[in-house]
Amino acid sequence: MIKLNSHYQKLQSGYLFVEIARRVAAHIERGAGRELIKLGIGDVTRPLSPAIIQAFHDGVNEQAEAKTFHGYGPEQGYAFLREAIAEYDFKRRGCPISADEIFISDGAKCDTGNIQELFAADVRVAVPDPVYPVYVDTNVMAGRSGAWKDGRYSALIYLEGRPENSFAPGPETLGAESADLVYLCFPNNPTGAIASRELLSRWVEWALKNKALLLFDAAYEAFISSEEIPRSIYEIPGADTCAVEFRSFSKTAGFTGTRCAFTVVPKAISIGGASLHSLWNRRHATKTNGVCYPVQKAAAAVYSPQGQRETKESISYYMANARLIRKAMQEAGFQVWGGKHSPYVWIKTGEDSWSTFDTLLQKADVVVTPGSGFGRMGEGFIRISAFNNRDKVEEALERIQKIFSA
Amino acid sequence: MIKLNSHYQKLQSGYLFVEIARRVAAHIERGAGRELIKLGIGDVTRPLSPAIIQAFHDGVNEQAEAKTFHGYGPEQGYAFLREAIAEYDFKRRGCPISADEIFISDGAKCDTGNIQELFAADVRVAVPDPVYPVYVDTNVMAGRSGAWKDGRYSALIYLEGRPENSFAPGPETLGAESADLVYLCFPNNPTGAIASRELLSRWVEWALKNKALLLFDAAYEAFISSEEIPRSIYEIPGADTCAVEFRSFSKTAGFTGTRCAFTVVPKAISIGGASLHSLWNRRHATKTNGVCYPVQKAAAAVYSPQGQRETKESISYYMANARLIRKAMQEAGFQVWGGKHSPYVWIKTGEDSWSTFDTLLQKADVVVTPGSGFGRMGEGFIRISAFNNRDKVEEALERIQKIFSA
Repeated sequence: MIKLNSHYQKLQSGYLFVEIARRVAAHIERGAGRELIKLGIGDVTRPLSPAIIQAFHDGVNEQAEAKTFHGYGPEQGYAFLREAIAEYDFKRRGCPISADEIFISDGAKCDTGNIQELFAADVRVAVPDPVYPVYVDTNVMAGRSGAWKDGRYSALIYLEGRPENSFAPGPETLGAESADLVYLCFPNNPTGAIASRELLSRWVEWALKNKALLLFDAAYEAFISSEEIPRSIYEIPGADTCAVEFRSFSKTAGFTGTRCAFTVVPKAISIGGASLHSLWNRRHATKTNGVCYPVQKAAAAVYSPQGQRETKESISYYMANARLIRKAMQEAGFQVWGGKHSPYVWIKTGEDSWSTFDTLLQKADVVVTPGSGFGRMGEGFIRISAFNNRDKVEEALERIQKIFSA
Repeated sequence: MIKLNSHYQKLQSGYLFVEIARRVAAHIERGAGRELIKLGIGDVTRPLSPAIIQAFHDGVNEQAEAKTFHGYGPEQGYAFLREAIAEYDFKRRGCPISADEIFISDGAKCDTGNIQELFAADVRVAVPDPVYPVYVDTNVMAGRSGAWKDGRYSALIYLEGRPENSFAPGPETLGAESADLVYLCFPNNPTGAIASRELLSRWVEWALKNKALLLFDAAYEAFISSEEIPRSIYEIPGADTCAVEFRSFSKTAGFTGTRCAFTVVPKAISIGGASLHSLWNRRHATKTNGVCYPVQKAAAAVYSPQGQRETKESISYYMANARLIRKAMQEAGFQVWGGKHSPYVWIKTGEDSWSTFDTLLQKADVVVTPGSGFGRMGEGFIRISAFNNRDKVEEALERIQKIFSA
């Protein structure tokens, strides 16, 4: 008799954004008074840039002619893209990463969700709190979470982010607990917190000492505006023996609907004498057939001089939104974090998160993300995303300010 | 201390096509005398058709303007594509499948590899032999295979395909064994065998009686040229309560480098009181962000009248190749199967498969696929793929005939 993976039963309610979509749909059904403005899910609104569009069309044209047609590509991605990434994102910043350590995929969500397959069922997993739900849910599905009790999974270790540690917990947060696999995300989703060189150095030192592995999600690195802040964990010496890094073109270049990302698995990572690179390569080749060729062409255009110029302009646009959000929410009397090196502003609401979510939805027709959806430490906060058009952001902030000044 | 998933150690050598690529690279390095002709990996060579290219460009153009830009789409795929599939592939053939039972993905390899995650670790798995290696390897990684012994995994059940059963084993092949999860693939990769309505009815009846689940891989259904042969398992009454079906645009419409596929999980499948549709939906929403928007537009064009005409023309082209391959190999004195409703011709070689592979590589500069790479029952066979240009196929067959008439 066929039996299901019983671990799925431990999953809590819907995936966060599914629950938000449900409430928004119900609100719309009741008849919203005016246009809904979405500052909830972190989805870009600006179109792909001209350099990217041109390369995308060129790729499609190659698929139209037998002599330039591309069938199955390398599962790991085309060399032209892997080499551009290695050069621009890593070598220029002094990181010891080569093209063959870069695996192209169709999303960082997939990669951060799939990487746990490579590890034993009984490794101890530490996740940030607040946390991007995918890290947690994929480990629940794999049976590493233990039971759900009092709002947490009994077998997961939670790295608590608080105002006191600037939402950037270090290894000391573990206390007496010993973790094997540690998910880190900087610039952080949802809090917008950044990791200093000093903090990352402590994590790397801790991982090396404890033979642990760091999973570093750098999907938002393009929003870092200071040269003092590391963009890659490989800027820290030794990280290439204890850390996997995830990157994405989604937020960097507006690829949320176009789908391209990559994961860095350095060859220097050896676990029990085995190469993690070989394992990931085997998984990748067995379970995927790589990413759409024209999409890889489009992604490579991000690294052209024109692509870089256009991409930076787009990021500046969103970051100007983030500044407006910070300012308006501070003026409305709230404490705010993030929004300086991240498209997310993290706001202390003074009440429970879903109440604020519902208030903003019902009174302002504005969608934000309730902090409690990211974990216990997110309770009492909301996340506002800077991904929208300027006029929408301004309108939303005006509506919000009216509620809180009333 | 971090520990690896030890099941990966049970994987046998490389993934089949990786091993082939290795031998081919070594051959090229030694200096091949003439152009290598690849009839090995089943990769299409004809470009995307004009209707598909136009829709693909249109989709890219939409990504260039803010007002038509698509960010994150529904993880399950856009309604326009799901509805076209439901209508054309299922409703018109009398299959009780609706659009919301169709999940768009970037490949049938991913889906056939990922589906096993939904089931308990101890379900008994039956796979065809010869078999598409992904079914086996993904269950090895998940710990369901048992140890590798005498060329087989001790805990897997092998459904042996032989000339005597036309390489289309039925449930009687199980003998006294009881399987919970059964992978079926028709038209078969690698043998080209088809499943009659009678055979599929027996499988459905068996699954219902034994509360087992069928995983039906129909990636090659577009090559079926007779109305007598079911294209979908849902043509069999009751299958919507005991079967998942996998489809792909890869071979149907030349999408191997463009990436689009889909999986059908009917809502009527209930396992231990839980909905398999809900579980797959949860997995899909948690671990993926859907498929590239312009690619989904391109895939939908397959269902337009022009797309249908062009797609059928392309399939006819490949099927004419298959007829040439069948004829030439029969004339060279071999017994052949497949190639009538499938792009693959399955040939009995009279010696071990890798020897024939090496002979053809070294003496004819032709790459085929050794049957033994698909399992014990494939030993003594090779697979020749019809996916190539006519002149290449003719040249390859001429070279092969020269060897065997010598």
